[in-house]
Amino acid sequence: MRVYLVRGVFTDAPEPGKLRCREGYLLVEDGRCCAFYPTLPEALRGVPLLDFSHQLITPGLSDLHLHAPQYSYCGTAMDLELMDWLSRYTYPEEARYADPDYAKSSYQIFVRDLLHSATTRFCAFATLHTDATLELMTQLEAAGLRGYVGKLNMNRNSPDYYREPDTECGMAETVRWLNEWARRDLPNVCPMITPRFTPSVTDDYMEALGHLAAERHLPMQSHLSENRDEIQWVQSLCPDTSFYGETYARYGLFGGDCPTVMAHCIYSGEAEQALMRQNGVYIAHCPTSNENVIAGIAPAAHYLRDGYQIGLGSDVAGGHTLNLFEVMTAAMQVSKLRWRYVDSSESPLTLAEAFYLATTGGGSFFGKVGLFEPGYEFDAVVLDDAALKNNRAFSPAERLERYAYLGGGKTAAKFVAGVRVL
Amino acid sequence: MRVYLVRGVFTDAPEPGKLRCREGYLLVEDGRCCAFYPTLPEALRGVPLLDFSHQLITPGLSDLHLHAPQYSYCGTAMDLELMDWLSRYTYPEEARYADPDYAKSSYQIFVRDLLHSATTRFCAFATLHTDATLELMTQLEAAGLRGYVGKLNMNRNSPDYYREPDTECGMAETVRWLNEWARRDLPNVCPMITPRFTPSVTDDYMEALGHLAAERHLPMQSHLSENRDEIQWVQSLCPDTSFYGETYARYGLFGGDCPTVMAHCIYSGEAEQALMRQNGVYIAHCPTSNENVIAGIAPAAHYLRDGYQIGLGSDVAGGHTLNLFEVMTAAMQVSKLRWRYVDSSESPLTLAEAFYLATTGGGSFFGKVGLFEPGYEFDAVVLDDAALKNNRAFSPAERLERYAYLGGGKTAAKFVAGVRVL
Repeated sequence: MRVYLVRGVFTDAPEPGKLRCREGYLLVEDGRCCAFYPTLPEALRGVPLLDFSHQLITPGLSDLHLHAPQYSYCGTAMDLELMDWLSRYTYPEEARYADPDYAKSSYQIFVRDLLHSATTRFCAFATLHTDATLELMTQLEAAGLRGYVGKLNMNRNSPDYYREPDTECGMAETVRWLNEWARRDLPNVCPMITPRFTPSVTDDYMEALGHLAAERHLPMQSHLSENRDEIQWVQSLCPDTSFYGETYARYGLFGGDCPTVMAHCIYSGEAEQALMRQNGVYIAHCPTSNENVIAGIAPAAHYLRDGYQIGLGSDVAGGHTLNLFEVMTAAMQVSKLRWRYVDSSESPLTLAEAFYLATTGGGSFFGKVGLFEPGYEFDAVVLDDAALKNNRAFSPAERLERYAYLGGGKTAAKFVAGVRVL
Repeated sequence: MRVYLVRGVFTDAPEPGKLRCREGYLLVEDGRCCAFYPTLPEALRGVPLLDFSHQLITPGLSDLHLHAPQYSYCGTAMDLELMDWLSRYTYPEEARYADPDYAKSSYQIFVRDLLHSATTRFCAFATLHTDATLELMTQLEAAGLRGYVGKLNMNRNSPDYYREPDTECGMAETVRWLNEWARRDLPNVCPMITPRFTPSVTDDYMEALGHLAAERHLPMQSHLSENRDEIQWVQSLCPDTSFYGETYARYGLFGGDCPTVMAHCIYSGEAEQALMRQNGVYIAHCPTSNENVIAGIAPAAHYLRDGYQIGLGSDVAGGHTLNLFEVMTAAMQVSKLRWRYVDSSESPLTLAEAFYLATTGGGSFFGKVGLFEPGYEFDAVVLDDAALKNNRAFSPAERLERYAYLGGGKTAAKFVAGVRVL
């Protein structure tokens, strides 16, 4: 359908802290929101109507940070400390994606579950393997989801069995991946340069990736300032930099002309924060990961209120769920604990702010995405909260809050850029 | 059936930090665990068998603290601070239970959902209303669940519309409630003396409740040291006490001969802790509430490892879920943040410890409950984790961990004291 109407209770966040709930009709044309009507105009009575009366409809949620291959062991070994978890679970599991059959069947489960979630847009890490990464991109495209996937770059500080031998080999595979992607018809799932994080990538490799990103106008994603030990490690690896973010920025991989998502940013100092804001670097705030990995709690309320670009990331499998509504809840909860124990000047994130992060905030990385405003792509999820009914009436905002906190809701329908995918 | 066998993967926690997973057959006789067999003995081949091969079976979970009437607005208004939340949501909602029809229909939803959860035993707060409280007890008994319910006592510091006028009226209603309960045939859902918390109950009322508990050999439940403002308030209300717990203890309502559950105990000082341990006061650790209410994080790992009586509480609706598996996950998560930000000497709770709290730890308040050991009542939940399968095999411990972290599992079957209730 080129033109259609959708009826329901449209709930979005036009600005941080402002929740907007409107019952009525949204006209969708060529995949984009066109106009909203509280009542159906006479002139539109002939237009096809998708009737979700009384159901809550939110923008599709954007997941700015996740590791697709880790989904297979999501929610296990959470007792382990980070380095043990990486060496005993992460690296052995990611290495298995060298096997095309394993990659295919594992990614089928991941893509199925992502499709049934409320997520419509994503930035995903894959593995070192070019073919497995292309398999993931192909499956995501076929599912109708949109976003970015990165073949991982890593040539140091991981086990021999899971590391690129040198910069040349890594670059050759990265170029092969980009060329193969261009050859396939995958217009909606695009490549993103993905050095795992500075400790995994030698300076010359990072530099070469910076050149490649600039040449091909590619975005990039990585990790930044997740814990203090990591920051010290980076400082010792790159003694000529004055802060962690500079290890990316010096090669053009830190916002500006290179759209960038940095996961975590828990311990970013003043200089790093200033550069992030100046360059429009997106912060992927990963509160479920903050809870599980013992890294700490990112100052998400500060970032949001002080004009940084910020959205949410599930960080599967440091985070234990793909469900960004649950991640929203965690964002509110950890911000309350941060307020209590770390910084009493940073009042907790509200529901409206957490919802903004999951929709408008993260969505803007993908263009006009995350709002029900004219010109925005029609990404939407229709929430089935029938199982959450109770013995009293709830406002749309309360229904949204219960959907986030209680879990147990379902995705009744889902649209990506106007196409119904569920 | 007086005697039957259950087959499955029995998972329990015989001591803190020790997870035991045994595949085989459990013989149940007169509602109690009798013996475990890895393979079926020839002599038992004629005994009726409930076959849950390959399914995970855990002890029923014990919820040491919840507010049944608050379930109706669970997961709403979590942005509010505690006092606003109480005055705008809690008191108005609890007051509605004066209406028997509202109480009946609301408690039907609560009992239905509790029945479908993994909880088999509970300590529940009701409201001020005798009849509504009896209605709740009757429904819980009919559902086959077991535990304690308290008609609330509160004669100060709440709105006029939701407060007992004086001690005499409060005591008269409390006695009427106990007599009416004794008249009804509710052997498995028993009364528990329930002063809301010290600020809600005058000294003479607390004293009278202490006498009543002693006369009738009743247990008691209340709140303790949840936040610093509350502790100061209690100090100003009871200037002749040296710590909060003493306001209960001086009237015989703090363990010893009066089995006691105290919710929270986040800021208990040395003297209070010493008395709790000496008197065997049970601590209801409510980690989801810790996350939502901004009170702080209780030192649960310290309590568990240093020999206190402790279990988990959902604290609905300060906590947002009745699902104690989710509460277990929150217990691990907040203990990691406590370790990071509050006390680095208290290493985080492990899965095995959190599971111990939810089963063995809390279960012991109800007698021989919470373990698959000979003589223990057969409280059990059969977990349906089919929806959580992924592309690799998981050990029973990993399946338990995923069931707790991922959510989305179901209760396939449930037994309380040997009776199948689901």
